[in-house]
Amino acid sequence: MGRTDLEMMGRQAAAVKYELQKLSAEEKNRVLQAVAGQLVKDTGRILEENGKDICKAEENGMHAGLVDRLRLTAGRIEAMAEGLRQIAGLADPVGEVMEAFERPNGLRICKKRVPLGVIGIIYESRPNVTADAFGLCFKAGNAVILKGGSDAICSNIAVAASIREALGACGVSADAIQLIESTDREVASQFMKLNRYVDVLIPRGGAGLIRSVVENSTIPVIETGTGNCHIYVDKYADLDKALPIIINAKTQRIGVCNACESLVLHEAVKEQFLPRLAGALREAGVEMRGDRQVCDLLEDAAEASDEDYGKEYLDYILSMKVVADLDEAIAHINKYNTKHSEAIITENAENAKRFLEEVDAACVYVNASTRFTDGFEFGFGAEIGISTQKLHARGPMGLKELTSYKYTIEGNGQVRP
Amino acid sequence: MGRTDLEMMGRQAAAVKYELQKLSAEEKNRVLQAVAGQLVKDTGRILEENGKDICKAEENGMHAGLVDRLRLTAGRIEAMAEGLRQIAGLADPVGEVMEAFERPNGLRICKKRVPLGVIGIIYESRPNVTADAFGLCFKAGNAVILKGGSDAICSNIAVAASIREALGACGVSADAIQLIESTDREVASQFMKLNRYVDVLIPRGGAGLIRSVVENSTIPVIETGTGNCHIYVDKYADLDKALPIIINAKTQRIGVCNACESLVLHEAVKEQFLPRLAGALREAGVEMRGDRQVCDLLEDAAEASDEDYGKEYLDYILSMKVVADLDEAIAHINKYNTKHSEAIITENAENAKRFLEEVDAACVYVNASTRFTDGFEFGFGAEIGISTQKLHARGPMGLKELTSYKYTIEGNGQVRP
Repeated sequence: MGRTDLEMMGRQAAAVKYELQKLSAEEKNRVLQAVAGQLVKDTGRILEENGKDICKAEENGMHAGLVDRLRLTAGRIEAMAEGLRQIAGLADPVGEVMEAFERPNGLRICKKRVPLGVIGIIYESRPNVTADAFGLCFKAGNAVILKGGSDAICSNIAVAASIREALGACGVSADAIQLIESTDREVASQFMKLNRYVDVLIPRGGAGLIRSVVENSTIPVIETGTGNCHIYVDKYADLDKALPIIINAKTQRIGVCNACESLVLHEAVKEQFLPRLAGALREAGVEMRGDRQVCDLLEDAAEASDEDYGKEYLDYILSMKVVADLDEAIAHINKYNTKHSEAIITENAENAKRFLEEVDAACVYVNASTRFTDGFEFGFGAEIGISTQKLHARGPMGLKELTSYKYTIEGNGQVRP
Repeated sequence: MGRTDLEMMGRQAAAVKYELQKLSAEEKNRVLQAVAGQLVKDTGRILEENGKDICKAEENGMHAGLVDRLRLTAGRIEAMAEGLRQIAGLADPVGEVMEAFERPNGLRICKKRVPLGVIGIIYESRPNVTADAFGLCFKAGNAVILKGGSDAICSNIAVAASIREALGACGVSADAIQLIESTDREVASQFMKLNRYVDVLIPRGGAGLIRSVVENSTIPVIETGTGNCHIYVDKYADLDKALPIIINAKTQRIGVCNACESLVLHEAVKEQFLPRLAGALREAGVEMRGDRQVCDLLEDAAEASDEDYGKEYLDYILSMKVVADLDEAIAHINKYNTKHSEAIITENAENAKRFLEEVDAACVYVNASTRFTDGFEFGFGAEIGISTQKLHARGPMGLKELTSYKYTIEGNGQVRP
């Protein structure tokens, strides 16, 4: 697939966006239900195509954990369908009047929520993203152009074909979803420069993918992603709260962006708390890497390097740092964090307030696990990712974050003096 | 100035942003007043430095219009100061609670407005932007790094020095504003890749500058700018409203992005309206370029090329196109416009509604001049530019658009099940 085909896809997406923005919530929900039904109906064909991807992955010696992420089952296809039905149940953000006011000259100005238009998504090997991303973008009135990983290409083509079939059967243009079938890296680069047609590009995947998109895209990017999340145990912490929160944030699911990667500890509680915490961490199989003060107290802790403090392990490893006061804790976190999710454990209201205000991150917690940074847990009903940048959207991104707005101005002949 | 110096500026801005986000509205307003006073006090020195820029520009044969944009006078410096005093009078957006809710598990989630952090601005030859951009970014709690045009370098250095002096005198870090003094293009390129420290980059200037920033920046960009704005005179237009609106939008100020560049006309009114409009346009010295139907009715209209319809003239030229119906008008506008400001003149409520909904632009008007797309005219009190992209901000950007938000989550020990 060359430049010309991408241009054509861009033009088709740009044309269909005007059709999509006119659909009512009821029409969109009917389509989402139909797509869910079609995916379940096509289970056999989708599993067959997924089998080809699995086969190739195993031949290439892919790690078993990654093969598992790639694998579809009847249950996982049903879960994709259920995800779409849930999106159908969410409120439609499009058309919401965000502000309305009248100017002294009689102009009536209204700020209204509208779809973004065309959303591009570049993602890695999970084929369920094909359906999830379509569902969210479609409900918010957007056309999508998807570029999945080469490992999942057969699965993605099959899932997209089912979605396109259901769209057509509902009388909606199938180009509401277009999948780039080429797995050529050069095509991915060209896709990132399609700003004439694509309004926003969202990368979903590991740090390498996200960096590549940020560096190469001329389309506005929403950076989602990496989380080097800290928990700070304050001098005034209730240590009975601190222990289960840390264990939950570190071990409940290790491979996710809102897992805790680093512990910061006030020196006043280190002797009382560290040995107790270490016991629980050992039991959970977590390797500990700390500074001199940590290593002096814990025989089995390794010395942490500067690199450790900047690292998103996504593994059973926790870095640990002792600080003299809240200022040092905040400075340490602001230096090493990735602006994702940070927590303080304290019973001191003033310290909690300072932490909430001064730590620079999308989500800042008092006395709770960082694992709650998630569209579902926030009550948004769904999410397309967690934004770690500050432009447009920050933190969990639901349907509203997949929209823009437009000003309408109604007058009766006003001219500018 | 090499990479290292930009790194240092980035680090300094990133450090000072924590100081700025803690300033109260009163403290910020006091600083803005002090800066205004310092600029007026330093008028002599600033004019002297501006004289050097003017001298060089005239030696280089710069166009008189551009020299005028570059020139400062005591009156223009007083106007810069007055702009800062006005910003001091605006409400502080920082700290506003945008949403607050409690989850079933007891977590209290609050979405609060915070500064973006560090804003980069790349601009062309008007030295007043140095003070304006600082004032808006500072009031919204941000540090700025500015890169002005080489033509205005002496003026910009003088203005920035006054601002830094006033900041220091108020006990605020002077690095709240940093000016890149190098006029090397390579330095500009490096600046556009400083995403480690700069949260957003806003280009202010012509189409070439904006394209260069969009193509080269790895920092999130807010695209401001070009306006190929249309006015559509509907079959149901009140032609007595249409005429002054078109003349105002085309001629009240020709060099601005919200000026009208193209007229779209329903064929049912062409014979009645075109000769009358042409008379007024001739009187205002506006050159007309139209399609076959326009040229058949107006002897002195030149034939418009496809390129004409896509052009932001910023001059006394108007392209003109006759259409058969509203659908054709909307399709033509959506094909050629730059998503800035578009107007319909009609007394038909249904056509007005369709135009408002279906035309893809930041600002869509009924029966009013496109010249109102402006932060002051919208009542925002000030503006840093007009966004023509859909991410983050669309249309006039005031103080709120120079902020992001953060979620704070307060619990009492919640862990994720």
